[in-house]
Order: sequence, then C-alpha cells, then structure tokens
Amino acid sequence: MPAVRLLDRVQSPKDLKALSPEETVAYCEELRRFLIESVEATGGHLGSNLGVVELTVALHRVFDFALDRLVLDTSHQVYPHKVITGRKELFPTLRRTDGLSGFMARGESPYDVFTSGHAGTAVSSAYGIAVADALVGRTDRRVVAVVGDAAAAAGATFEALNHAGHEGHRILVVLNDNRWSIARTVGGLSKYLNRIRTLPAYREFKKDFHDTVAMLPLVGAPLARWTESVKEAVANYLNPGHLFRELGWTYFGPENGHDEPRLETLLRDLQRVEGPVLLHVVTEKGRGYGKETKDACHAVSPPAAAPAAKPAVPTVSYTKAFARAVRRAMDEDPRVVAVTAAMPDGTGLADVAPHHPTRVIDVGICEQHGIALCGGLAEAGLKPVAAIYSTFLQRGYDQVWQEVVVQGLPVVLAMDRAGIVGGDGVTHQGLHDVAFLRTFPGVTLMAPADPPELERMLRLCLGLQGPSGLRFPRASDPDVALPGNDGPLAVGRAALLRDGTDVAFVAYGSMVRVALDAARRLEDAGLSAAVLNARFARPLDGAAVERLARRVSLVVTLEEHAVHGGFGEAVLSHLSTLEEPVPAVVRVLGVPDRLVPHGERSDWLARFGLSAQAVAGFAVRECEAARAHRR
Amino acid sequence: MPAVRLLDRVQSPKDLKALSPEETVAYCEELRRFLIESVEATGGHLGSNLGVVELTVALHRVFDFALDRLVLDTSHQVYPHKVITGRKELFPTLRRTDGLSGFMARGESPYDVFTSGHAGTAVSSAYGIAVADALVGRTDRRVVAVVGDAAAAAGATFEALNHAGHEGHRILVVLNDNRWSIARTVGGLSKYLNRIRTLPAYREFKKDFHDTVAMLPLVGAPLARWTESVKEAVANYLNPGHLFRELGWTYFGPENGHDEPRLETLLRDLQRVEGPVLLHVVTEKGRGYGKETKDACHAVSPPAAAPAAKPAVPTVSYTKAFARAVRRAMDEDPRVVAVTAAMPDGTGLADVAPHHPTRVIDVGICEQHGIALCGGLAEAGLKPVAAIYSTFLQRGYDQVWQEVVVQGLPVVLAMDRAGIVGGDGVTHQGLHDVAFLRTFPGVTLMAPADPPELERMLRLCLGLQGPSGLRFPRASDPDVALPGNDGPLAVGRAALLRDGTDVAFVAYGSMVRVALDAARRLEDAGLSAAVLNARFARPLDGAAVERLARRVSLVVTLEEHAVHGGFGEAVLSHLSTLEEPVPAVVRVLGVPDRLVPHGERSDWLARFGLSAQAVAGFAVRECEAARAHRR
Repeated sequence: MPAVRLLDRVQSPKDLKALSPEETVAYCEELRRFLIESVEATGGHLGSNLGVVELTVALHRVFDFALDRLVLDTSHQVYPHKVITGRKELFPTLRRTDGLSGFMARGESPYDVFTSGHAGTAVSSAYGIAVADALVGRTDRRVVAVVGDAAAAAGATFEALNHAGHEGHRILVVLNDNRWSIARTVGGLSKYLNRIRTLPAYREFKKDFHDTVAMLPLVGAPLARWTESVKEAVANYLNPGHLFRELGWTYFGPENGHDEPRLETLLRDLQRVEGPVLLHVVTEKGRGYGKETKDACHAVSPPAAAPAAKPAVPTVSYTKAFARAVRRAMDEDPRVVAVTAAMPDGTGLADVAPHHPTRVIDVGICEQHGIALCGGLAEAGLKPVAAIYSTFLQRGYDQVWQEVVVQGLPVVLAMDRAGIVGGDGVTHQGLHDVAFLRTFPGVTLMAPADPPELERMLRLCLGLQGPSGLRFPRASDPDVALPGNDGPLAVGRAALLRDGTDVAFVAYGSMVRVALDAARRLEDAGLSAAVLNARFARPLDGAAVERLARRVSLVVTLEEHAVHGGFGEAVLSHLSTLEEPVPAVVRVLGVPDRLVPHGERSDWLARFGLSAQAVAGFAVRECEAARAHRR
Repeated sequence: MPAVRLLDRVQSPKDLKALSPEETVAYCEELRRFLIESVEATGGHLGSNLGVVELTVALHRVFDFALDRLVLDTSHQVYPHKVITGRKELFPTLRRTDGLSGFMARGESPYDVFTSGHAGTAVSSAYGIAVADALVGRTDRRVVAVVGDAAAAAGATFEALNHAGHEGHRILVVLNDNRWSIARTVGGLSKYLNRIRTLPAYREFKKDFHDTVAMLPLVGAPLARWTESVKEAVANYLNPGHLFRELGWTYFGPENGHDEPRLETLLRDLQRVEGPVLLHVVTEKGRGYGKETKDACHAVSPPAAAPAAKPAVPTVSYTKAFARAVRRAMDEDPRVVAVTAAMPDGTGLADVAPHHPTRVIDVGICEQHGIALCGGLAEAGLKPVAAIYSTFLQRGYDQVWQEVVVQGLPVVLAMDRAGIVGGDGVTHQGLHDVAFLRTFPGVTLMAPADPPELERMLRLCLGLQGPSGLRFPRASDPDVALPGNDGPLAVGRAALLRDGTDVAFVAYGSMVRVALDAARRLEDAGLSAAVLNARFARPLDGAAVERLARRVSLVVTLEEHAVHGGFGEAVLSHLSTLEEPVPAVVRVLGVPDRLVPHGERSDWLARFGLSAQAVAGFAVRECEAARAHRR
C-alpha cells in the first residue's frame, strides 16, 4: 500500500501542527508541487504563492488562526493558506464561476478574515483588530499581516506603519520581500530593501564590528560621551531596517523565507516581543517553478482550449487595442506619455515601453501618486494617459478630483477591466467608474463599442482641453467596426447604428454589440428596434436620446456597470430636464445592485440578463406590458 | 511725508527682489503684521501663514515663479505668497463670495499653478512638472514644492518621495516642519522629525565626532575595512534625515525657517545640487501672534457680528450635534469608537475625546489608513465611526470599497461638510458623496433634516449590521425636530411631513427645511404641496415616493449635492422600475454641474435656485407649464 501523501494527511492547520520537523519540510515540497500542477491546469497567480510556501506553513504551525488573525495583503499569496485550511479539493474550480476564489474571501472559510485584492491595506486592517483588542483588554490572540515589498510601497501601507509604529499596540507584520512588484518593484523603498539584503556578509561582520567599536579610545570625559554616540550610530547602521525602526517598529531581518524551521523558531521568539514588530523575509517569487522566472512572476493562463474554427475576422482584446493605440499616438506626438501603477503587462503598456521607454512611466502600486503626477505632466504641456484598471482608479480618486478635475487638466483616464472582470472577482469588478466620475464637472466620459473605436476615442481624448475617462472591458472582439460605427467622433454625439420604431436600445460601450444582436432577435418577434451607440456618458447626446424616445414606446438603456449611478441614470436625468416629458417607458438594464464574485464574464452577464437573448426577451415582455397597459 | 511702507512698495516679486537685505527682514515683519490685522478682520487660516513669512519671502527672492513653478501642499500657507504676488488689496474679501480664495487658486493668478486644499499631493504634482521638463529637455526652470510635516505623513506624499527619489529628476521639496498638523501631528514620522530637531547641539558636535572617528585604531588590514564602515555609519548617523536619504533624496537641515537671510543663502546653494533635494526647515506655527498658540494654530473666525435678536429656539451646528451624539453613544456603549484624520476640532471629536480619550483615534492626515483601520475595528466587534468631511472621504474611497463595502462591515461614515462648505471653496465642497457611495451595494445612506434627527440617525447606523453613510451640512439649525419629524426611524422609510395634492417636494437632508418653507409659500399661489423627508438615499423609500407621484402632477426632488449622481437620480431610477409609470412630471433640483468656488453657503444656494423662494417659484412655473401642456 503506498504511503498516504503528506498533502492528503494535512486537511487542517491542526494536522499541519502534528507533522514532525522533517515531515514539515517534505510537506512544503509536496505543497509546492501541488500548486504548480493545479495552477498550470486552471490558471491563476502562481509566482507569489510559490514564494510563500514555507512562510505560510511556518505561520500556521506557530499560530492558531482559528483564534489568531491572519491578514494577507492583496492575497495573491493565499493559495498555500487555502490548501492548509482544508480547501485543497476545490483547486480545480479556482477562479471559476461558483468556484474557489483566487483571493482571501471572507465567507469562504473562517480562516479568511478579510476579502482582499487591492494592495496596501493589510497593515491598517490588521492593526484595527489589534487596537480593538487592546481597547477591550483582549490578550488571547495575535494579529499577523503579511505584506509584499511592492504593497509596502503603497502610501496606504506607509500610513499604517506610521500610525502603528507611533501607537505601539502589538502586531506582527511579515514583509515578504520577493523583489518583485506585479512588475519589478520600483521606487526608493525598493532600493533601500535591496541595500539591506546585500549588506555584504552582514551577519559575520556584525560581531567584529562591535569589537572594533569597543576598542574606541576613551580620551577624556567629553569624548567618552561622543564615543557612546558613535557606538549607537554603529549599532544603528549594523541593524538594518532603521527606516522601519525610525517609524517605531522593532525590525528583524532580513531572513531567508524558505528556511521553514528557522522561520518557525523566529516566529515563536517574536511572540515574546511587545509592540509592533516587522519581520523582513526574503523569498523567491516562482520558487521551484522550472520555467523562466518571468512566466511565473504573476499570473499563469490556463491551457488554451482546442482552437475553435478560425473566426472570419481576427479578434483583439481591448487591452491590446489600447496598447496599439497608445503606441501609435506616441509615434505621432512626442507629448503623449503613459503612466501605469505596477501594471505594464496588464494594461498592455509593456508592449509600448520598448518603443518609447522614457514615455512609459511605472510608478509602482501608487495610483494616488500616479494620477497627481499626470496632473503635473499635463500642466507642463504633455498629454498624459493614466492606464489604470477601473477598480484601481478608486485608489487615486481624490487625486482625480483635486489634481485633475479641479484644475481642469487634460489627463486621460484609460480604464481597462471596466465591467465584469472574470477570475479576479469581487474586489476587482469595474462596475462603479461611471458613478464616481460622472458626478465631477468637466469630465468627458466615453466607452468604445468595438476595438477600432477605442483608438479613435483615445485620439479624441488626447485632443481635449480637459479631463477625460475612457472605459473598456476585459474582453476581445473582432477587430473591425460594428456596422455603421465607423463614422467620425465628436464629443457628446451618439451614433445611431440601426433605426427602429418600437424599441430603442440606448447602449454604452460593450453593450452596443449585445443591443445589435438583441435588435436582430426582436425582428422575429415582429418588433422594430433602434440601436443607439451612446459613445458618451458625459456629455450625453440628449438630443439623440430624445428623438428616439419620442418615436418608440420603449427605451432600454444598457451598460456593463452598476445600475446605481450608471449610464442609465444619466439618460433618466437628461429626460427629466425636458420641458415636455417623453411618452416612452424607459427601463435601465445593467449590473444589479450586489457584489459580483469571480467567474466567467459571460456567465455573469447572462445571469444578470445582459445577454442578447435575455435583453430581447426583456424588450418583448415590456412591449407586451405596455400594450396591455394602454388597452 | 511719511515713508512709504515696504508692504506697499512690494507689489510683485520683482519689487521684493529689489529690497536690500535689511529691508527684506523689515518687510517680513510688516507682512506678518499685515496678515494678523487682515485675517483677524476677515477670518481665515492664520497659524500656517505666520509660520512661512520668511520662507515665502526667501523663495520669491531666490526663484522667479513667473518661470519657476511653486507648488504649495494644501496651501493653508499661501497668504504671504498672495501678498507678494500683488493680491494684498484683495485681502478684505478673503474667502468671501466672489472674493480672494484662501488657497492656491489656478486662474486667480499666474503664480498659482495648481488649486489646492487637500493635503499630500504637492510633491506628486510638482514632480510631474519636473518629469515633463526632463522629457522635453527643458532646463530653464526649477520646480519647488512646500510641504508641511503633517502632509508629509500622508501616504500620497510617501508615494511621491519614493518615486522621485528613485528616478532622480531635479526637484526641491521644502519640508515646512512646524510640528503641528491641523491638530498635533501624530505618527512615527512625527517622532522621527522630532528626534532630528532635538539632536543636542547637533552642529557643534559634528566636527568633533568626526575627529573621534578619525582616531579609530587601525589594527590590521581587516579591521581597517571595518573602520571605514564605522566612519560611514557615524556619518550616516550625524547627518539627520537618513530616512529621506534612504528614499534617494539629498537632505539638508534642519534649518531655522525664520532666518530669512540664511534661507536665501541655502536656497541659492541648493540650486547647484542635482536630483531630488529635500530642505527641512523648522518654523513656528502662529509666529508673532500674541494670543495662545492654540488660537493661532489653524483657523481664525471673523469677529462675530452684532448679536441678532436671540432666537426663540437655540440653534446648534450639525458638527456640535454630531459630537454630542457620539459622546452619548460612547457613554452608553463601550464598543463605539471614533476615528478622525487630523480633524478633531473640525469634526467636533475634540469635545468627545476628554470624556473617552482611548476611543477617539486621530490617525493624522491619513484617510486611507483611517477607513481601513475602521474595517479592522469593526471586524473585531467594535462600532467605529469614521468622522471625515465628505470631500476628504474621497481620499479613502478605495478603502471604503474594499475594507468596508466588500467585507460588509458595520462602519459608520459620518460626513460633515456635506454640501456647500463656504469659505474653503472648490476643493472642499462636499457635493459628490451620494454619487460615489450610492453605487456601492449594501451601504445605507442617510441625511438628517434637523439636529435631533442626526442623533437618531447615528444611533440607527450604530445598530446596523453593514456599512452606512451619514451626511450633514456645514450649518446650524434650531435644535428641535421639524414639525412632524420626530417619529421613529426605520431603514428605508421616509417621513411625510406635510401632505399636498399639486406638488410633492421629495427632499434629502438639509433641503427638507427649504422644502417646508417653499411649500408654505406655495399656499399663497394656491398650490397644495406635500413635503417628504426622504431620510434615506439608499435604500430609497420608493413606495412613499410612488404614492406621492401618483397623487400630484409635479414631483420636485431637492438636495444639497451635485445633480449628476445625486439623490434625485435615485428617485428617477426607482420610478423607472415601476411596472406602471407615474404620470407626474419629475424635476431634479440640486447643485448644478459646475465647480463651486468659496463664498457664503447661503449665497451659493440662492444662486443655484435652492432657496425656499426660488424653489417655490420654480414649482409655480412648472405647474403652469404642465397645465398649459395639458390644455
């Protein structure tokens, strides 16, 4: 009978604690193999997870996270934690509709305290628990936050370190330093950590250093005092991490993050230290993964399915179309610059950078700084494009307000992943950008209905005198204009792609294609449907909407955005200003008022009634109801 | 003939440059006197401005900000700059309607590069200019940012220092360290700066220290190498600011920020240093102001006008009502905690802190951390109230999303200054919170119509299982319930304060009072107007709105919020979901789609047609139009 794999024996943290030290080391290797095999099959974030196998195992052997609290920043590194806490069998469903979340997911397990996905907040959340426990006198649990070096450069992390270091409640922060951001870590902090890591033969010299200092001559009384200070200075210098210590933290490290037994010893020892403690461990992103490090560094795509019949027209992702458009714009105009917040690959700018290396600026996971920087670039006469996912733009929201909108500066906010994002799930959904931007005066907001329109819109944005926002989905479409959608663009002008007399679909961005399909389906039901590509959520083409609304009996607005605060409300708002109200019934279709988990975009759109079939069915029912009502 | 005052001779930076060194020092004193007299008459931010008189004079004598770029963080310290750049005569209009802005104001003067007001963004904006200049090869101008020590603790500033220190383009940041935030500066960085400032007799010891180190024995070759490192360590220690140097900045300081000639010399010398330079100056907030420092520390109120006839019912500000409510809630429930971001006075929490010192937490100008901290506090079972102005909540927007909304945690977002804010003006207007919060699932949003209702709403919030937002204006009202508004509160239930058959005012928060007044005025026009206190923007009491909308011919929604994305659109949105559309005309009144400058709240509300008189007039015209239309 073959021995039961350690991987199968460990179904809970309790099982993990029962392993011998030797078994634990072996378990780490089994876990690493499991992750590689599993994620290669499903796709997912592999690199970060391979780097924290030993760290996660050590944490679970030392702490009891049924009681203690573990907060993972961003939580790209959550997979080992999920395996250890009894979710191994769910890995084939990773990031799939109704499957296992790829992030910490509150509700998925009692071991997942906070749902995570955006970087830089773990120390704050964890410290909140620590403060609360201190306030109520609770001493039976510890709080641990694990933060990557890239997330540590986010301003939010600095704020938390600054506050916690000052207040001094007990918390352990593990700085997981894998020398990578999602792209390479940038910034002075990164250089600083690098210096700590590379202090030559640091440990060996330490004692000798002290011996040297002990030999300092004591020449007279005043010098004695100075000598003490010199000793302090040397101690300061030899003990790396003084940047953290200046903020009030007890610093330990750098330590090898792959030496599981050593990590266990350290974590046990550190439990005796009062106040805020920072343990700096150095890990290797993608450790144990044979392929080139770059492949393992962030996300792995699932194996491609068998190729479908070659489409008549090649498709292109909006990300690629955006990158192509940015590159062309840069080729033609030296004033165009692009800013990314640690997402050169995700935004497509990695394809642009080789051609225009000085004009693609990666600021790290610092959307706040990135947006404000764009304000400065624009003030100085350049044409900045901030390429930031819809959901991450929220981190720079206040800078969009003050540094862009209030100044009226021509910054282009290019929002990829606007809409349902797929595997990343709830924290990453781009369903609120119309709401949070449309309320700001002077912003031009638009969304392309096809990839070529994205490029024309980017050009339009780059020619504006004020701020603009351009949202596009995580999707691919045929790389040609939709029928009738190749006309010129003008701010605030919609395009009537199809005329009709019963129903008018007023669609924004990705839903224009759905509306066209739905309109064709309505023909079978004997209904004549118009399709308006709204193009602009702000300024809305109110005249075009009104013309249609006076001709048909049903107007349906369509958008891949929350109905609360979305494009449909912009239409309703405009219609409420008309001197003579329109007689048509107006219905708003979009993403319902709920949190949307991970899963296939098409699955969720269908569930929300945003497929062409569902939209057509909705229109038929509404027209019937309207007729019945009129009788 | 009396000598012309230096103050009058200096009408521009050019005039300032023409002064002799002795005249310059004298000018500083005249400028300081002018500021005290002027601001005592008008009200305004005095403390910060008195602290930067010499610094501003020195900057303007060394640089030419017609060409060079000066970016002031937050710009509470802008008054001396305004005087020097020819705006002295406008000071009697400071912060008044159509008068001089109290902040840097783009458009007010070519010397004001960016409009400012929110803290922590100056280094980013300024660095954007520096990057742009480097990209286009422009070398004829310098970029200077002035940042207070409190703003330096904002995460956004850290992001900028981290990026600029790494990239190394030329920029000068003056860290204006006055040891104050708006309240006292908190955090580890503050302690760190304090250590720098208090290094005992720092300068005097420096040389001797080096002499001591030079005496280190050279015992054999290996030790020689270590000795070099000891010297480096000592140099590091003796040169304060290594925290900044670790981030890649060349650090100078701390320097006396009131020694104008010395500052000039320094600023001239620093122009020769390449790359990012940080000059740390220590200044005294409120310098030269005789009164207690606390009075001068932030804002000065204008002298009270002659007391009007004592009102029958005492009035109370919503800020005071909030503080009273928080205190009572804390008295009764030990789980209630309040978090402020450097605004204990502005939010009223300073009145609460003496009674519950451990449960009022000031995180400094760190809204991001503050909100995420609340998430942790709530997860641990406490009932956190984040007391943050509507406009500053934007800084923590992404944390509201991930750390509160996605987790579904019961954090109360108490938004003071929601609406037109008065003298602070454009950057501070609280006109977008309904838009940016209503789009988030699971948030309960409400606004009180009178001070007692605020307290009942806070209690309601504290009893909820999920997140909530409570907005209230910068205003005072009689401290009693509006007629009929003293009934119990229930989530999503509006209160019909007055019934009517022609017009229905559906009002949110501060506009309920206006609607009641307008309804009374309509009686004279022979119109019967209902007034619904909506109480909740989310969930909206759709049934109550529908009932009214089926009874009257005109529904008017009223809010002190941008019409784009506001409460009115929530009403329109709900009505669009009704199976049978309502026949009434629905109109949305609120703040129009524009930036709103400083000035009296009542002035701007009147200009926007939001006075009772204007609202009544609007309703009369709309009813006439509807009748004409029906004929």
